[in-house]
Amino acid sequence: MIIALDAMGGDNAPKVTIEGAVESVNRYNDVSIILVGDEEVIRKRLRSKSYPKDRLSIRHASQVVDMQETPTRALRHKRDSSIRVAVELVRDAEAGAVVSAGHSGVALATSLTLLKKAPGVDRPAIAAFMPTLKGRFLLIDAGANVDCKPINLLQFAIMGSAYYSAVMGILAPKVALISIGEEDSKGNDLTKEAFKLLKASNLNFVGNIEGKDIFLGAADVVVCDGFIGNTTLKISEGLAEVIFRMLKEEISNSYVGKLGYFLMKPAFRSFKKNTDYAEYGGAPLLGINGTCIICHGRSSSKAIRNAIKVTNQLVKVNINKIISDALLTAAGSDSPLTVAGADSIERSSNDMQGQGLIEGQD
Amino acid sequence: MIIALDAMGGDNAPKVTIEGAVESVNRYNDVSIILVGDEEVIRKRLRSKSYPKDRLSIRHASQVVDMQETPTRALRHKRDSSIRVAVELVRDAEAGAVVSAGHSGVALATSLTLLKKAPGVDRPAIAAFMPTLKGRFLLIDAGANVDCKPINLLQFAIMGSAYYSAVMGILAPKVALISIGEEDSKGNDLTKEAFKLLKASNLNFVGNIEGKDIFLGAADVVVCDGFIGNTTLKISEGLAEVIFRMLKEEISNSYVGKLGYFLMKPAFRSFKKNTDYAEYGGAPLLGINGTCIICHGRSSSKAIRNAIKVTNQLVKVNINKIISDALLTAAGSDSPLTVAGADSIERSSNDMQGQGLIEGQD
Repeated sequence: MIIALDAMGGDNAPKVTIEGAVESVNRYNDVSIILVGDEEVIRKRLRSKSYPKDRLSIRHASQVVDMQETPTRALRHKRDSSIRVAVELVRDAEAGAVVSAGHSGVALATSLTLLKKAPGVDRPAIAAFMPTLKGRFLLIDAGANVDCKPINLLQFAIMGSAYYSAVMGILAPKVALISIGEEDSKGNDLTKEAFKLLKASNLNFVGNIEGKDIFLGAADVVVCDGFIGNTTLKISEGLAEVIFRMLKEEISNSYVGKLGYFLMKPAFRSFKKNTDYAEYGGAPLLGINGTCIICHGRSSSKAIRNAIKVTNQLVKVNINKIISDALLTAAGSDSPLTVAGADSIERSSNDMQGQGLIEGQD
Repeated sequence: MIIALDAMGGDNAPKVTIEGAVESVNRYNDVSIILVGDEEVIRKRLRSKSYPKDRLSIRHASQVVDMQETPTRALRHKRDSSIRVAVELVRDAEAGAVVSAGHSGVALATSLTLLKKAPGVDRPAIAAFMPTLKGRFLLIDAGANVDCKPINLLQFAIMGSAYYSAVMGILAPKVALISIGEEDSKGNDLTKEAFKLLKASNLNFVGNIEGKDIFLGAADVVVCDGFIGNTTLKISEGLAEVIFRMLKEEISNSYVGKLGYFLMKPAFRSFKKNTDYAEYGGAPLLGINGTCIICHGRSSSKAIRNAIKVTNQLVKVNINKIISDALLTAAGSDSPLTVAGADSIERSSNDMQGQGLIEGQD
């Protein structure tokens, strides 16, 4: 598997991207990486490192997308940026996937523009794993589409369900829709219509889910528009950080508290490991012709390494085919996906019983 | 000040509502409370308690709204419910405010229907305080309006700013708009248009805010539609709970960890106090003719007591007049509020400089 890595993308790039790449080729025998970015800078940093030379190469790109850039501007004016050249390698079949911790909006727009949407997909979406009390859930869409139609949410659910199933090995993952109440009737215009579509689908739809329950692990796949998804992601990140900072402040007010903290450190560390985004290895953009993994801007070399590991697995299981098949199965089976004006459809949830999406995949 | 308390509303009602009422009249000399609900049940519970008889009375209501009820159904069929009778007391000027920990949707709908919107208000909104690293911020709308227009978000900002200013004594609180990026151009259709209106207003608008920054205290008033607001509220609640449960599990894996937890207990307790919703005393529905405070369904007697304390203060400062004045000032001063098709307005933020909303209030 050849992976194109945007060496210049991320808050700590190219240091951590290069380190992550070196660690990856040293660790995983079946991975080759093309570091895309400023050749001279990358070459200099690689000089002191030891790694299998045949599986780590450099592709020069003269430009870097900075965080203030808009996707439109970057696409038009940065035609030799590291992210664009990396995506081109996938388009031209020189690499099987692209990984970037840079400007996620630009990475998404570039992947969409150059790789195009997969057949049957209306809107590709970002699928991000997040920790729960019991394990993890998949949040989709985590930020690719800020304004959605009900049919988009149904597609996110189908893609997310197929992805979760492939990655976690669970046949019919529980799918839920973020809303402001558990009752079927609760929600805004978008979620109320999406609810009907999800209920009529052959997914294992368990209904609406409230924010307070998603971290309890009540659902495997949590569906929402990208505005809600991104806000969910960022609130969680911010709140977890603030809780620990507040606790630390309280602790530093007393010696006993400090001693307590010292004794609890292994517990804190283990907790952090369980909830650290770096363990989750980036989030794929599902529904495009190709594999594009978005990493957190603050990624460490370990986060990059995990992203490369996950990317390798995704390509191996042929995640794109799994998702296309899932969408085509749904579309071909008298489903709302093929019906014009799907927004107003109300069908019995019994219609598609026994046609498990996941079971029909292989 | 006479407050009508929905004695039957809330997960632990009428036990905690009655206890909260008794504690309040014992503590605050200027508060009188009318307990609204099943007279026999309330009288029985009051028998063992000691309190000033002249400031705690009962008004019988034969029905209770349960949590599964829809607002429409409750309004139509539960005409003698505790929440409805309590709101009627405000409508008929027998009480100055209503407090309820029951079905918030029904409390809102009943208040709106019976008390009506205040002059100039398009959509009343719930304003909820939440903790930050530095103090607290006000979230508006916390759940009253699931589908909003840009002009609604502007009104939420004006009402929230006036409320924050009155409660916290800060002249021009920093107002921010929840979005998925700090840059002006980031957001969905709704927030992008609302951004323009906020920028053109005379509020102290500091721009977009991301979920990760709201708990750092980057803004005093955080504006969003009710779907986002309610989700924010519930994610925060759920995540905080899960973090503590996960930590506890880690701790219980080792004796040293348990000892550490024991030593850190005062810090945990102090943290909990700082972030406990019970300390915040409920959230008002701003923009109606009357004062209606919504409490958390899980309210303890302390939460009820704090809600009564805050309600008393709000009525004393005449919060409704402050809010009406703020809206009228904004509407009267060449503002987007008076312009038809406000959604598409783009004005220079300099237009209204020097016309501070808050400064013009008295």
